[in-house]
Amino acid sequence: MNEDCIFCKIVSKKAGAVIVFEDEHSIAFLDIHPLNPGHTLVVPKNHYPSMVEMPPDEVGRVFVSVAKVMRGVMKASKADGINIGQSNGRAASQEVFHMHVHVIPRYIHELPGGFPERKTASDADLEQIGRKIKAAIGA
Amino acid sequence: MNEDCIFCKIVSKKAGAVIVFEDEHSIAFLDIHPLNPGHTLVVPKNHYPSMVEMPPDEVGRVFVSVAKVMRGVMKASKADGINIGQSNGRAASQEVFHMHVHVIPRYIHELPGGFPERKTASDADLEQIGRKIKAAIGA
Repeated sequence: MNEDCIFCKIVSKKAGAVIVFEDEHSIAFLDIHPLNPGHTLVVPKNHYPSMVEMPPDEVGRVFVSVAKVMRGVMKASKADGINIGQSNGRAASQEVFHMHVHVIPRYIHELPGGFPERKTASDADLEQIGRKIKAAIGA
Repeated sequence: MNEDCIFCKIVSKKAGAVIVFEDEHSIAFLDIHPLNPGHTLVVPKNHYPSMVEMPPDEVGRVFVSVAKVMRGVMKASKADGINIGQSNGRAASQEVFHMHVHVIPRYIHELPGGFPERKTASDADLEQIGRKIKAAIGA
């Protein structure tokens, strides 16, 4: 645990987040500035600044969770596709230095083109889509 | 194995590619249209159209390989950072329908901004960076 890390605080429940999945190694919660509704972050419970510092086996365990979470996100957000993104280092546009994996719902109507702009989601919107994702992962 | 799949042909060595890593479950080779030199793809040996169809444990095993490969790519390409990208479905800009993970070297001088344009690499360029990556992964 890194005392100054917002994701460590979410892992230890000292900071709030809409959590949609949790297991021994990892936790998944909604991005509060989603590219699309349902945009979820999956992070290891242990603090690693990026994937570079993580033991490969632990990377693998986080992505087992990503695979479970992405199906729930796709179903709950009625997405046509999913982008998985994971950034390492400032040069790769990493902003929070606790390794995290983006699970991003995508839609055919967004084609052609790059990623949509980030939005600010209300707590009510996050709670609503979070409940749907959690239910879809559990199903 | 899917007879019409170019990545299955690379897995079975019926199509050429600059292979930088291989284990029981996965294989990594250079993208022939790299965003930056050293851009590598990691794929499962079994054919799955996307991550959606893959058992989560198999997703995890492929990302154990991604974690190993990304360190080698970073070292060999002298990158400042690495983006990991994985697209599922046409809406997510997936183009080859055999699940694959992009490992993309990034540089501070590219900031701010999105991904660079794809380039066409010569066979000689691919062979040269491929040798460096392979050596760096093995080291």
